[in-house]
Amino acid sequence: MTTAPALLPIVQAALDELRAREPLVQCITNSVVAGVTANSLLALGAAPAMVDVPVEAALFAPLAGGLLVNLGTPHSDQMAAALEAADAARHASTPWVLDPVAIGTLPVRTALAHRLLDKQPTIVRGNASEILALAGGGAGGRGVDSSYHPDEALEHGTVLARSAGTVVAISGPVDLVTDGQRTVRIANGHPLLTRVTGGGCVLGAVMAAFAAVHDDAFEATVAAVTVYTVAAEVAAERSTGPGTFAVHLLDALSAIDPATVADRAALS
Amino acid sequence: MTTAPALLPIVQAALDELRAREPLVQCITNSVVAGVTANSLLALGAAPAMVDVPVEAALFAPLAGGLLVNLGTPHSDQMAAALEAADAARHASTPWVLDPVAIGTLPVRTALAHRLLDKQPTIVRGNASEILALAGGGAGGRGVDSSYHPDEALEHGTVLARSAGTVVAISGPVDLVTDGQRTVRIANGHPLLTRVTGGGCVLGAVMAAFAAVHDDAFEATVAAVTVYTVAAEVAAERSTGPGTFAVHLLDALSAIDPATVADRAALS
Amino acid sequence: MTTAPALLPIVQAALDELRAREPLVQCITNSVVAGVTANSLLALGAAPAMVDVPVEAALFAPLAGGLLVNLGTPHSDQMAAALEAADAARHASTPWVLDPVAIGTLPVRTALAHRLLDKQPTIVRGNASEILALAGGGAGGRGVDSSYHPDEALEHGTVLARSAGTVVAISGPVDLVTDGQRTVRIANGHPLLTRVTGGGCVLGAVMAAFAAVHDDAFEATVAAVTVYTVAAEVAAERSTGPGTFAVHLLDALSAIDPATVADRAALS
Repeated sequence: MTTAPALLPIVQAALDELRAREPLVQCITNSVVAGVTANSLLALGAAPAMVDVPVEAALFAPLAGGLLVNLGTPHSDQMAAALEAADAARHASTPWVLDPVAIGTLPVRTALAHRLLDKQPTIVRGNASEILALAGGGAGGRGVDSSYHPDEALEHGTVLARSAGTVVAISGPVDLVTDGQRTVRIANGHPLLTRVTGGGCVLGAVMAAFAAVHDDAFEATVAAVTVYTVAAEVAAERSTGPGTFAVHLLDALSAIDPATVADRAALS
Repeated sequence: MTTAPALLPIVQAALDELRAREPLVQCITNSVVAGVTANSLLALGAAPAMVDVPVEAALFAPLAGGLLVNLGTPHSDQMAAALEAADAARHASTPWVLDPVAIGTLPVRTALAHRLLDKQPTIVRGNASEILALAGGGAGGRGVDSSYHPDEALEHGTVLARSAGTVVAISGPVDLVTDGQRTVRIANGHPLLTRVTGGGCVLGAVMAAFAAVHDDAFEATVAAVTVYTVAAEVAAERSTGPGTFAVHLLDALSAIDPATVADRAALS
Repeated sequence: MTTAPALLPIVQAALDELRAREPLVQCITNSVVAGVTANSLLALGAAPAMVDVPVEAALFAPLAGGLLVNLGTPHSDQMAAALEAADAARHASTPWVLDPVAIGTLPVRTALAHRLLDKQPTIVRGNASEILALAGGGAGGRGVDSSYHPDEALEHGTVLARSAGTVVAISGPVDLVTDGQRTVRIANGHPLLTRVTGGGCVLGAVMAAFAAVHDDAFEATVAAVTVYTVAAEVAAERSTGPGTFAVHLLDALSAIDPATVADRAALS
């Protein structure tokens, strides 16, 4: 079922490609993590552009290499921008990532997530609760926390991937990526990623960066998860808590190279 | 007048309780400090949820363990969310904290602060100028800076606590907490707290976290101030300036334990 | 053409003056860099006030020592605040800085930048693409990145300075500052400044802080660029990547003194 053995060299090549091309990544994301999202993309070698107001958002999406739409703080103007940017991205074939933060119990973002899903995101990223909520299963999470393990959302995630024609990435202690046919497990990362805000939100932006430089969205998603979670492991070894971890994670995203990825990647 | 000797074991127990229960803290706060607020709550062991849009804010407040309403950048949509969340919190008995940032000279937030005060916040946190402005005394501060020492606001703060049925916390070189009957002075902290943005705003969120796990709001407020300012002392010893201080403060909030609190707490 | 030899003692004196007076700097800036902007001003010794809502913005500008208007995420309410604050600053003779982030291809902010330029900013700060776009030359940049070297924008920048009666600062590998008569090159800084978000945006706020304490806006701008880029050099020497750099930059802004400025300043 998995294609894990063949994926490692693809991940390595995608990282080199990202560094060489410095893709422009448009981010429409929540106000809590906007700064760390931009810093993470810059550290990795991409160029963030937080173009999230109406009119500009739609004009920019065709120019961007990738687009992130994150529903963490769905203020009305920004969400109008998200809807028009998603349309523009689809028409321009700009790959885009939907991150349906905390949907399920919260109605504004839940309705938005379903409208955005109709606009055919290239990748959907969430924790198990969010993926279940989007796929019509489960009972929702507790804010941004998941009440479920990724494996519990895999069946619904696989169906969602097929029906929506998208890649689904389920974040958790082990990350799962599926396009409905292929499925990969990535057993990298560190618990400190859950102790800093934006651990998951930033990953959505990293996925948009990889999708900008690598055409196969499933492979690009696996590359993003692997590079990001391996960098988190490196950072955790240098940290004495969540404050130093957040700092070293940026350094690690900047320094990570294909050899480090090969040493640590745990794909299956 | 004070009950300081009896408070230390209560502070220690509240910290253990917070770690054990990981309370969900809804934050409606300004865009400048949203990231550091979420990171501070995560470091301490709470679960932040920045649910600050209309409709969702009111639905979420009954589910949260505590709520923070901070008026630092009072954009209209967010403030509509604040008003409905405060109502919902009151009806659901969710403890909530009002932080009337820079009220006095600035009319939009001053009017909002008075409307919110009518909704019976569990705790009001501010510097001396802000507390005086809310209580009807003083001449206002210079933006977020206070023109007064906490002791100069204590009399008005005590009257405010009694008339509004709330706990009043006055931040400054020495912090004062009063419920109108009991008053405690906490002589911990470090000047570097005034050299990083959000030093006070984050404390408001920490108060909401402690109030979520400890029913006596006066004691919960003392616990929040003590734990936060002791962590600041620990962080300052490891820092070479405000940049490293902000990082080590997150590490210190994550590592702080009842023994460290007992070693350093200066309650009277 | 330049007055560089005479400028160093002026830069040093302006730094001392800033530390002595702790100027209040009103910031109307984008949501991505609001936190780091406030932290940078605090580290340097200024007092940030993020007063960016309508009504309050105009009332506050006359009280502030300096004002920054940054167009990075031009949400409608915040931009209404920016327009009224610029008017109020002009009438109250509060020096103010316009940072026309990513104008050129993006129409909302481009139109705003031209309306704001009519309100006579004291200083305009941008990269070469942004200055060319504002001056009516060039083809725009790629989001916040510049497609041009500062020297390519100097001629248009000089004309803009004269016609608008403003100081123009062009950021890049070498920074240029001109008031249309005097021009100075500052060859300090470090490539890591381009790998953290807000490297340029923060500089705009620092300019507002220096303009608050030093009447000659050209000299104040040179002081801001010199102090900020020298601090960046110091920080880079202590850093292992963009994460640690951002932290050490705050420490360096806090610690920088006139002697360090004299040792490193590369004005010509």
